[in-house]
Amino acid sequence: MTDVGTAPYAAALSDLVDTANALADAASVETLRHFRANGLNADNKAGAGDFDPVTIADRGAERAMREVLAIRRPDDGIFGEEEARTIGRSGLTWVLDPIDGTRAFISGLPLWGTLIALDDATRGRIGIIEQPYLGERYIGIMGDSGSVAQLISRAGTHPLRTRACTDIASATVFTTDPFLFTGGEVDAFTDVRERARLVRYGTDCYAYGLLAMGQIDLVIEAGLQAYDIAAHVPLITAAGGIVTDWQGGDCRWGGRTVAAGDPAVHAAALEILSRVD
Amino acid sequence: MTDVGTAPYAAALSDLVDTANALADAASVETLRHFRANGLNADNKAGAGDFDPVTIADRGAERAMREVLAIRRPDDGIFGEEEARTIGRSGLTWVLDPIDGTRAFISGLPLWGTLIALDDATRGRIGIIEQPYLGERYIGIMGDSGSVAQLISRAGTHPLRTRACTDIASATVFTTDPFLFTGGEVDAFTDVRERARLVRYGTDCYAYGLLAMGQIDLVIEAGLQAYDIAAHVPLITAAGGIVTDWQGGDCRWGGRTVAAGDPAVHAAALEILSRVD
Repeated sequence: MTDVGTAPYAAALSDLVDTANALADAASVETLRHFRANGLNADNKAGAGDFDPVTIADRGAERAMREVLAIRRPDDGIFGEEEARTIGRSGLTWVLDPIDGTRAFISGLPLWGTLIALDDATRGRIGIIEQPYLGERYIGIMGDSGSVAQLISRAGTHPLRTRACTDIASATVFTTDPFLFTGGEVDAFTDVRERARLVRYGTDCYAYGLLAMGQIDLVIEAGLQAYDIAAHVPLITAAGGIVTDWQGGDCRWGGRTVAAGDPAVHAAALEILSRVD
Repeated sequence: MTDVGTAPYAAALSDLVDTANALADAASVETLRHFRANGLNADNKAGAGDFDPVTIADRGAERAMREVLAIRRPDDGIFGEEEARTIGRSGLTWVLDPIDGTRAFISGLPLWGTLIALDDATRGRIGIIEQPYLGERYIGIMGDSGSVAQLISRAGTHPLRTRACTDIASATVFTTDPFLFTGGEVDAFTDVRERARLVRYGTDCYAYGLLAMGQIDLVIEAGLQAYDIAAHVPLITAAGGIVTDWQGGDCRWGGRTVAAGDPAVHAAALEILSRVD
């Protein structure tokens, strides 16, 4: 564990990182058991007219993570996608999305991930994207005296570092689905899309791993929940980037988000996106 | 090698499959060497205003495959993306796309693939999608007395079989980029998109692997070249599906294509797509 002490949690940070890794391990057992399994049927959480798949794997992975926390961190809060929120007494909250990208999951596409964030009262401290089929774990740790961002994969452990990008004309931009934008968001995203060097769709949380790795420059999304974005804030920040809402403010609780590897291209994107009310 | 004898090439089919696998192996060495490498700069094949990346890896992989063919199959034709077409004398042509999905490749996204097809005068005989970062090789072999489709991966070798899907309302539909459609194609794709159960973007050739695996139901594209689609025809056909142009005809030479896991949903898609002149 690198020195990233964070008062008042300095002494405990190493243990918290161990816990975060244990959560990722526990979730992976459940998700991999069901990924590409035949006969996997998605329930329909939102009702017949609005397809929002939830799988046995989704629920099983959150349950497995909650069981780890019940033993290791019984006083921490838990805000997960699948079960009711648990209010804690420690000032720390785990924000969990057992499967971000359920549509990718049920399509057999290995771009879904388990998202794990540790949040204190003021900011995200730990963020993980776990993609067990690829054998990739992206982890960012924000301390008071430093930060660490790493990709742990079959090829070993490597530092994550975002890349320089000064304007949208030279940016690679990712979003999950261009048709998820509504109202004024459509024009704003279209403006970015038409100026950008390269635009890609359909990557869900995996885009943030590529951003941390310095492979792409911007991820723009809207309509997010806290558990969709909380892990990405410490990860991208620790890797040298920046994540905010479309007005440049805190986005840990979801909504419209813009993540950038370089503050310069982030500012350029905000010039367009901040026009949306 | 399973018995899939194909006159007049029956005796040679096993050797041709060995050659196809050797091509995939040779290409992988070149592509993996450059995937996610720092400082990978995309050339601009189409000129400054039109971003069409070609990488060292792209050219290196085609060169490596041509060297394999020069030794093993000197009389066969070669139609690759990067170099001039080689006219053969055997009646067989290898159709090669060293990196399908160069945009994915330069974004660090492991959904690109090396596409390898063996075509005779009448149809595709062998098709491979090679994704070496995932360690996945999708192969389909069309013989006169049978066909074989397999996924060879870190988990072993497994048969590929498309799934049943009778209508668009229950279909998972993939395409690379909704903004690649032009003219009447836009309305036709929008019609399919609005009826479909689930739509995903940005997968390039990998969508055809998922289709062969029975994870998704339709892949709809336009503006393809022969080397973008040739490998998918024998692969999807051998797995139980169907690939045609938007009028239901042969699409081995590119253009507008629709690939389906079930002939029923293929017919349903053609009802909409065939309206486009």
